[in-house]
Amino acid sequence: MSELFDQLKTKLDRSVALSAALALFEWDAETLAPEEAADHTGKVIGILSEDYFKSLINPEVKSLLGRLEQEENYAKLTLEQKATIRELRRTYKQLASIPSKEYADFCELANKSSSVWAKAKKNDDFTLFEEYLKRIVDYKKQFASYRVTESSEGNPNALYDVLLSDFEPSLSTKELDEFFELIKEKLVPIIDQVKQKQDEIDDSFNTRTYEIEKQRKFCDFISEYVGFDRKKGVIAESAHPFTTNFHNRDVRMTNHYDENNLISTIFSAIHESGHAIYEMQIRDDLTLSLIGGGASMAVHESQSRFYENMIGKTKAFWEPIFESLKETYSKQLADVSLDQFIRAINKSMPGYIRTDADELTYPIHILIRYELEKELFSDQITVHELPKAWKKKYKEYLGLQPKTDTLGVLQDIHWSSGDFGYFPSYAIGSAIAAQIYYFMSEHMDFDTLLRGGNLDQIKAYLGEHIHQYGMIYGMNELLFHMTGERFNPEYYVRYLTEKYTNLYGLDA
Amino acid sequence: MSELFDQLKTKLDRSVALSAALALFEWDAETLAPEEAADHTGKVIGILSEDYFKSLINPEVKSLLGRLEQEENYAKLTLEQKATIRELRRTYKQLASIPSKEYADFCELANKSSSVWAKAKKNDDFTLFEEYLKRIVDYKKQFASYRVTESSEGNPNALYDVLLSDFEPSLSTKELDEFFELIKEKLVPIIDQVKQKQDEIDDSFNTRTYEIEKQRKFCDFISEYVGFDRKKGVIAESAHPFTTNFHNRDVRMTNHYDENNLISTIFSAIHESGHAIYEMQIRDDLTLSLIGGGASMAVHESQSRFYENMIGKTKAFWEPIFESLKETYSKQLADVSLDQFIRAINKSMPGYIRTDADELTYPIHILIRYELEKELFSDQITVHELPKAWKKKYKEYLGLQPKTDTLGVLQDIHWSSGDFGYFPSYAIGSAIAAQIYYFMSEHMDFDTLLRGGNLDQIKAYLGEHIHQYGMIYGMNELLFHMTGERFNPEYYVRYLTEKYTNLYGLDA
Repeated sequence: MSELFDQLKTKLDRSVALSAALALFEWDAETLAPEEAADHTGKVIGILSEDYFKSLINPEVKSLLGRLEQEENYAKLTLEQKATIRELRRTYKQLASIPSKEYADFCELANKSSSVWAKAKKNDDFTLFEEYLKRIVDYKKQFASYRVTESSEGNPNALYDVLLSDFEPSLSTKELDEFFELIKEKLVPIIDQVKQKQDEIDDSFNTRTYEIEKQRKFCDFISEYVGFDRKKGVIAESAHPFTTNFHNRDVRMTNHYDENNLISTIFSAIHESGHAIYEMQIRDDLTLSLIGGGASMAVHESQSRFYENMIGKTKAFWEPIFESLKETYSKQLADVSLDQFIRAINKSMPGYIRTDADELTYPIHILIRYELEKELFSDQITVHELPKAWKKKYKEYLGLQPKTDTLGVLQDIHWSSGDFGYFPSYAIGSAIAAQIYYFMSEHMDFDTLLRGGNLDQIKAYLGEHIHQYGMIYGMNELLFHMTGERFNPEYYVRYLTEKYTNLYGLDA
Repeated sequence: MSELFDQLKTKLDRSVALSAALALFEWDAETLAPEEAADHTGKVIGILSEDYFKSLINPEVKSLLGRLEQEENYAKLTLEQKATIRELRRTYKQLASIPSKEYADFCELANKSSSVWAKAKKNDDFTLFEEYLKRIVDYKKQFASYRVTESSEGNPNALYDVLLSDFEPSLSTKELDEFFELIKEKLVPIIDQVKQKQDEIDDSFNTRTYEIEKQRKFCDFISEYVGFDRKKGVIAESAHPFTTNFHNRDVRMTNHYDENNLISTIFSAIHESGHAIYEMQIRDDLTLSLIGGGASMAVHESQSRFYENMIGKTKAFWEPIFESLKETYSKQLADVSLDQFIRAINKSMPGYIRTDADELTYPIHILIRYELEKELFSDQITVHELPKAWKKKYKEYLGLQPKTDTLGVLQDIHWSSGDFGYFPSYAIGSAIAAQIYYFMSEHMDFDTLLRGGNLDQIKAYLGEHIHQYGMIYGMNELLFHMTGERFNPEYYVRYLTEKYTNLYGLDA
């Protein structure tokens, strides 16, 4: 029996190796590669992507997959092997429908497109990027169309549902419409109340000038403080912070340092560290395999959000280390007390930039992207109309209209590489983090641990109940295993309501 | 006709892409990867290496190669296509004899071995590295043995000749024995004379403390000054300086900054820039192809040596920029005049470290490695005996005995990745540089160009006559095209004799 699986394993090892190479090229393009490299490197990436595709989608793997799915064979597989078969079937559904040449062309385009996006963002010129984005969207529509089933006939969101399922298999527009309705119903009233009290929290110190070199040093410190292991990872700089990895012993995160926004930089570091810690704690026997990543995008995001918000934004977390930050910036923070700092890092105020958003307004940024993506993939708007539509929605939901596209539609890298359907995972991730937070609170005293600078126990707990498993379990299975309950967005609403009611002294 | 070649081309494109991925992993391992990454990454590299191997060595490519070599097909090929066929045949001779699994295992070992070497060098502990090196040598013997022909029966250097031919096809131990005989006969007497006059040049300023950050900045400047294009390249840091590339628009060089050896750092920068300029000037239609690299290791080295020595060590070169160096280190260089500086950078004194060696003693460092490699591959010494043998030869030829292996047998990275037969290319490269120098002197006034800071013309000339061609021509063909003469080591001897006779006022 295991012989049949071993045959498959050898073939999957090749796809894992090619995927690591592609991840390295992507990391390199974002952090280091010279300006003129993109075209030629794009060719290399195109070829390797095609190879990657063919390493998974081919008659031999298909046949092995089919045989291993037969009941008499499947029953004998281990838990890990069954998860591998499940993931491979999912990949087959995603990719097998796409002609390999088409897929390679897309990957080459997506690679070039990222550097074009960076340029467009820098120059605040959407037109530079528009044609690339249009082609990316066309490819994604085409790819999704291969997988639309008969049962979704007449569903205007059929294409977008396909894209969503790539990131979180258990969620479609149906569940997400409900999720965002809840957000709108319960949170928008709170946002409105908080808006009236904007003057109550003074965070003006945050726009003072904070030397980049010191930010880098402090962020390195804080990443290690929460649990990022420098022996297993690298921290670099890129236009937009991200985390990637080649395996559990080589996990890489970036930050983007902003001289006049200390809080944003610090919490990006904690956020990406949360992602990185997840990858570092995946079991050795799972890493470098098809199930060697995080359970899903949303679960991944839950870990980064957990560290960023539930851990990093508490007073207990800062008690042992705030003095060190004040020493780093002794002039800039001379007049800032710990209490002031804590109130400032939790301040809620509608803004343009998703990655700078506070916890309360954050899901609205996602709501806007969710709606735009839904409209884009149901042909209600065109790529050309995106900048205008973007501004309109920000005005509608947050009462703000960004003056530039750099502060608007060009702010995020995701679309440039074709990641549509990804954004909702961010909000779902925050919601999972809240659910985990309430559950863990019953098992450990966060305040005491954080005050003692003892983050190891938290990391170990997450490692034991979530990280180590890689992709063995899906989101709901993992949550049920850990908390006895499936995904439940009520915790998220409860968390934000409690937190902001307290912070701003709102009427409960 | 071209249809048959196009079929081959598509297949070779895959091997080029895989080879770029392997080069990126190697770059990354040397410059950035975290401490614990090597084992897992080694697996990835093993798989990709096997893929690379199979992308070249397979029945389809073999059959296409055979058909394209048939006279009626071959005659119709372009110059570039013929060169591709020649290189592919060479690769077939090198690799086709090695079982693919064996090759993959070797690549995985070589990757790990580089980080083990770095550790051994750091800790001055050859025993850490010994077992790895032994296995590397065994693999290389095994690989070479597959290619030993009947005609070399009874030749004790048969294995080593095979390895040498991988780096410079036109040179074997026969030619190299002659070359090094000439070096010994003509140069050793000069070295002895210079030794008596060691006190005549004072370079004591060189061991003052030069802040690393300023070195980095000045070296970046000087690399760009000689022609390194930052839009097409990256400069980073590693244990041992090297240059690599993925194509002509992404060329990467490293340096190793030594706080107490300014001259070494600066000339490493110029040296690696020479390599990088070569790669950057290879034609767009050749890059990312089987003939997209430099003509040979020796020709590559000739370009780095040309920039380092014939250009970088002249007074004319430093006239426009010496003030900038003095400003960078205003305290450390306050008492150093341009003339003193020029004499110091050309000072000859036997030392332990190859990469720090002056031009005159440099070929002796190579001679020692050449003799040790020859002895290693003809079973006259074992890996275990290397440290001792190393010290003995340094005593014999340069009158010096290194106290540590870090200053001895562990100083160079090459053997850790199995690059035996590589070192002679360095000395041959210097000899080619001298030959090119005398020829170019007839066509341009170096002194005037350099005094005017006009290095573009030199770069353009080398681009036109050497760089652009990639591997279309071999070493002798290239030299003949350019100078009307094949490789001739007499220029090298003449160059060093003239230079050091003048510098030290020796009896001519």
